[in-house]
Amino acid sequence: MTMLSRVNAETISVGTELTCGITVDTNAAWLAAKLTDAGFHVLRHTIVPDHEGDIRDAVRAAAGRATVVVVTGGLGPTADDRTRQGLALAVGRPLVEDPAALAHIHSFFERVQRPMAESNRLQALVPRGASMIENTCGTAPGIRAMIGSCTVHVLPGVPREMRIMFDRSVAPILPVVADRRCVATRTLNCFGASEAHIGEQIADLMAAGREPLVNITAHKAVIRVRIIASGPNPGAAKTAADADAQEVHRRLGPLVFGEGDTMLQDAVATLLISRKRTISIAESCTGGLLSKRLTDVPGSSAYFLGGVIAYADNVKSTLLAVSANVIALHGAVSEAMAKEMAIGCRSMFLSDLSVTTTGIAGPGGGTPEKPVGLVYVGIASARGVEVRKLLLGDRLCRAEIRDRAVKAALNMIRLELM
Amino acid sequence: MTMLSRVNAETISVGTELTCGITVDTNAAWLAAKLTDAGFHVLRHTIVPDHEGDIRDAVRAAAGRATVVVVTGGLGPTADDRTRQGLALAVGRPLVEDPAALAHIHSFFERVQRPMAESNRLQALVPRGASMIENTCGTAPGIRAMIGSCTVHVLPGVPREMRIMFDRSVAPILPVVADRRCVATRTLNCFGASEAHIGEQIADLMAAGREPLVNITAHKAVIRVRIIASGPNPGAAKTAADADAQEVHRRLGPLVFGEGDTMLQDAVATLLISRKRTISIAESCTGGLLSKRLTDVPGSSAYFLGGVIAYADNVKSTLLAVSANVIALHGAVSEAMAKEMAIGCRSMFLSDLSVTTTGIAGPGGGTPEKPVGLVYVGIASARGVEVRKLLLGDRLCRAEIRDRAVKAALNMIRLELM
Repeated sequence: MTMLSRVNAETISVGTELTCGITVDTNAAWLAAKLTDAGFHVLRHTIVPDHEGDIRDAVRAAAGRATVVVVTGGLGPTADDRTRQGLALAVGRPLVEDPAALAHIHSFFERVQRPMAESNRLQALVPRGASMIENTCGTAPGIRAMIGSCTVHVLPGVPREMRIMFDRSVAPILPVVADRRCVATRTLNCFGASEAHIGEQIADLMAAGREPLVNITAHKAVIRVRIIASGPNPGAAKTAADADAQEVHRRLGPLVFGEGDTMLQDAVATLLISRKRTISIAESCTGGLLSKRLTDVPGSSAYFLGGVIAYADNVKSTLLAVSANVIALHGAVSEAMAKEMAIGCRSMFLSDLSVTTTGIAGPGGGTPEKPVGLVYVGIASARGVEVRKLLLGDRLCRAEIRDRAVKAALNMIRLELM
Repeated sequence: MTMLSRVNAETISVGTELTCGITVDTNAAWLAAKLTDAGFHVLRHTIVPDHEGDIRDAVRAAAGRATVVVVTGGLGPTADDRTRQGLALAVGRPLVEDPAALAHIHSFFERVQRPMAESNRLQALVPRGASMIENTCGTAPGIRAMIGSCTVHVLPGVPREMRIMFDRSVAPILPVVADRRCVATRTLNCFGASEAHIGEQIADLMAAGREPLVNITAHKAVIRVRIIASGPNPGAAKTAADADAQEVHRRLGPLVFGEGDTMLQDAVATLLISRKRTISIAESCTGGLLSKRLTDVPGSSAYFLGGVIAYADNVKSTLLAVSANVIALHGAVSEAMAKEMAIGCRSMFLSDLSVTTTGIAGPGGGTPEKPVGLVYVGIASARGVEVRKLLLGDRLCRAEIRDRAVKAALNMIRLELM
């Protein structure tokens, strides 16, 4: 198994503000991405409070499993910073003042022309035999110590200082993973089917133990298929990832709208520009969100002419020339209304495409016939008008109903242009 | 020490996307805040990949230290979801199909009128003797199992589902912590001054060691002043927090726009409703975002009549009756344009207030005279028209420029109504 041939790494984040939930830890994810890129298998992240015993236990356990451990946080000058003490207990050596570290702290305060507090002197303490990691951004030097065959790198918790120090002083001396498996990843973003449905179509690719690793996550109705391939060199890893990506593309077809950070509006923008089409929008329940998404994309003035947010009923009739009959007969939330709005919008803006939304975003305003979450999306083009009915209310709140309605509309535009 | 008399809790987050650093785990912090509020001492968070052995080890170790363990993630229907298997190994019992869980999954798919994939059936498996935790938002039921005297609650990783299930089905049955110290918090949200400026006005309240604890954070131009008071009973803690909140209010005055989760649009909505005023919007560079924010608020149809997104120049003149002269003389991004748009919008929608934006959101389109980030915000009312010029381009990207412009517009509406 490839697992065994990889070198293990772990991270430990220290801080009572983290264990109490006041702050979300972002250091572990940042470090994990760096370590994964360097070929390490990141086994675990541990978050412990500012207590020496907890820090000691976490460092010892991690050093027993991993070759590289990166600890962040708890190196400050105040009484609640206990990481150096916890590290000393874990390595079994007393803290001693490191002259290089003390000189470094002195020079920092000289550089910023501020007096050094006596408490900053504590930041020069390292377990005997350990060494300092230079910090060019702040007062707290890092510490590097060995426990058995594991190297423990301790960095400050401030993300900016931590990142610079990792890149400067940790990354360059990481052991080169000998039979290092180079990693290549592809992420295919899908819309229009459930996670389970997509999972079934590629179940064999996701089988446990198969290489490349293929997994699926769902976030706000966007399903992401992630392919993580490894190989002895970058070319081999990339070839393996590309082969799987091609296979996923083949099976999922137009469900895939883009890769990496591409969002639905980016895919729509690319199509509108390549097809040289313009678009206008008339929104009711989505209240501007559809136009906002379309104009999130830099350069959107190439295709986006404008929009109307027809919230009040009389705005629908006066601005979009929807006949009062439609409202009287079918109501503002109806297929007929979405259709009339789309036609009215297209003739008002003289755009190639016009897209409309009308619905009940809730939480109030629903009836048994027209429940919260009922949304009609209309799309008018030279080919005519198409309306889709969505039922989004069962599990979703107002913001989610609006988000899903907009995504459905963007996806309709995408499919129309394909 | 209160620490010893507290009851220990831990969290475990499962997901290879977390250990690889693709996703930042926010569940642990959310759960930790809830558990801390309930009087628990949160000892540790552990993050492990989707591997049964790692999940088993983490659950066993946590159950050995804590009375309550909450595990999130890895309950999905696809092959890479291994939490139920890991849990079964940790409790030492085989997985069996839970009829209640299966019925629950069936009823979910009936309710949303979609066929159930065969793989969803796996989500009804629980270790023998364990019970299901109902999920009202998605397909994955949670699992509750005992290991010795520790209760392990397993919830889905999707934050929204996890949060609702924790509040509904975990929080009510948590053991009551006997001699807990009560905490009361207030959060005052401010807009219109820098973090440093606000910090200076309340520096004495923020002194280290002072009770209550007062701290400041800045996020996307909203400055939050947090007051955390503790006391032997809820009344004492609340009194202390309220006294500080009153003092902060007194010093910061109209910079404070609301408390807790209140956003600028909520404060604006409350004022519009209490003053019985209606509003309409004409946006250019913000492309729908201002209307979107105003309609984020449930019940926004009470005040929001509608809007126009005048992206193309000819839309500005045809729809908002801005004379071609204004564009020719001053350009589309100008004080005159913001003014004309506001007047045109107000007479088109017949609203009490009309607010407009025109600017250069970038990244392209800037010139030395009109740089990226230059935005004019106009507000028209019975009292006349006011235009404010913003320069937001120095450090901000397109999305941030649009966000700040909309916040400035919302704040102008708020101050106009106060």
